[in-house]
Amino acid sequence: MSSSRVVALCGGVGGAKLAHGLQHVLGKRLNVVVNMADDFTHLGLHISPDLDTVLYTLGGLNDLQRGWGRADESWNFMEALAQVGGETWFALGDRDLALHVERTRRRAGGERLTTIADDVARRFGISAKILPVTDDDIRTMVVTPSEELAFQRYFVERRCEPVVKQIRFDGAASARMTPEVRAALGADDLQLIVICPSNPYLSIDPILSVPGLRDALRAAGVPIVAVSPILGGQAVKGPTRKIMDELGIQPTTAAIAAHYHGLIDGLVVDSADAAEVTGLDVAVHLAPTLMTDMASKIELAEQVVAFGERLSMPDAQSEK
Amino acid sequence: MSSSRVVALCGGVGGAKLAHGLQHVLGKRLNVVVNMADDFTHLGLHISPDLDTVLYTLGGLNDLQRGWGRADESWNFMEALAQVGGETWFALGDRDLALHVERTRRRAGGERLTTIADDVARRFGISAKILPVTDDDIRTMVVTPSEELAFQRYFVERRCEPVVKQIRFDGAASARMTPEVRAALGADDLQLIVICPSNPYLSIDPILSVPGLRDALRAAGVPIVAVSPILGGQAVKGPTRKIMDELGIQPTTAAIAAHYHGLIDGLVVDSADAAEVTGLDVAVHLAPTLMTDMASKIELAEQVVAFGERLSMPDAQSEK
Repeated sequence: MSSSRVVALCGGVGGAKLAHGLQHVLGKRLNVVVNMADDFTHLGLHISPDLDTVLYTLGGLNDLQRGWGRADESWNFMEALAQVGGETWFALGDRDLALHVERTRRRAGGERLTTIADDVARRFGISAKILPVTDDDIRTMVVTPSEELAFQRYFVERRCEPVVKQIRFDGAASARMTPEVRAALGADDLQLIVICPSNPYLSIDPILSVPGLRDALRAAGVPIVAVSPILGGQAVKGPTRKIMDELGIQPTTAAIAAHYHGLIDGLVVDSADAAEVTGLDVAVHLAPTLMTDMASKIELAEQVVAFGERLSMPDAQSEK
Repeated sequence: MSSSRVVALCGGVGGAKLAHGLQHVLGKRLNVVVNMADDFTHLGLHISPDLDTVLYTLGGLNDLQRGWGRADESWNFMEALAQVGGETWFALGDRDLALHVERTRRRAGGERLTTIADDVARRFGISAKILPVTDDDIRTMVVTPSEELAFQRYFVERRCEPVVKQIRFDGAASARMTPEVRAALGADDLQLIVICPSNPYLSIDPILSVPGLRDALRAAGVPIVAVSPILGGQAVKGPTRKIMDELGIQPTTAAIAAHYHGLIDGLVVDSADAAEVTGLDVAVHLAPTLMTDMASKIELAEQVVAFGERLSMPDAQSEK
């Protein structure tokens, strides 16, 4: 499949790591379809946390120690914002801020998020295509026992502390898949669709909630492979495990397989969870899924692509 | 006049220096009415250059070496903005940016520039009242032989290079003096009005262009003292001299006195220009007007206040 294309569905940090590995393997043959439902307006600025994590990670600009935002970041804006009485619960680095200001300005001028993301990706030297799943507003709302919280309020301001009763994607019903996403999924030389190890409930579901997206995935007629975000009964990062508990879902590989049932053809499961895969109703590939450096990102990406190639073959079900 | 009030009309850097000195002398008895006509919208942000210069200077936050903006500033936002293809002709420091973002956000929420400036002044520990002359939009337009330029485009982007044929204040006719400015000029205990050594054509005229402002100044019934921005036939800073040349005005103390004729009762002229004051049709006080440090700001402020006191006395004209 040296000249064929791959589409990866991706949320934030964990997903972006695999997308980074896939970019190394596939270069411009990779299309990354990004969750836009944790976007929000803050301080009058349009902020796209998952999109920017993907842009910074694939552009090699992300901070490796902190785990989010840009490397070589400074925080003088935040300090001065506190001084003038501004809201400081959401940390915006001085460098990071440039992307929010410029995106807000260009959107106000009528430009699409897709166009802006593409320009920025090119300027960051990103070879993959970075595609917002939609240019319309979808907003993840977290329903807790006492209130409804916009996702970043829940995730950052409240540090995921409130109990999650339900997750809702406001605006999803009327959001339109972009022509670019439709084209990527309809490409003749598409060979594989990858669901990155992002939070299925918070990062992948909002992508899947865009009308027509699930149908387009199926109509693509290529293997769909998900990488499980669960490792030894835990999520590597973020609130996946806690949310699964609160939604009454077992934090198991089986639960992830069940969540994607009917959508995926293969599931990549961490080697440490080999005991969990017995009886799963999907082809499984075991691989180390913890990505701690570029080498482990590339290794996982190669295994995911090779797994997808095997699933394309007539005897694909043999791995199950 | 230990408990009486002073109103100072002020533009940017030069005027803010005197206002800073006046604040030292008068504390909360000082009201600074600030030019808002070099405000502009840039990158979607409402930027108020003169107002912010006054806030930073009187708050002791201004950069003394650079001469504008905040001390201890960093420029990572600008670097990152260039990286994403944003407009970089107007330098916005990381700390400075906080004020623009917060003001833009609050204005979008319906708050007045006056309220926002007052809050920021309080947070910066400023004892004087900082009063935008209007909450409405006035915009200085510089007419050159080939085009019309918004002031910051002329001043910053074009570095004052185009020849100035005319200066216009768009929006002035419908701008409303704020109730706070009206109250400051109508206060029973007002003792003196000072016109700071800002550019008369670019910084003071737009203040005076607000309907009712000139009448309110005269109706106040207190001495009006201007400090000449000309020193030895030159402006201390900025394009005053060049603009006077291009508008066909001699760069002399006499031209400044003529410009303010009918408005002011006294003119403070630099001691170096003593030879120029003969025959001026206004009371003159000679003093060192170059403010290079806090001591020289205070010294000039004290002289201006004392000059105003003498002008209030029955034999005021004796200095002429």
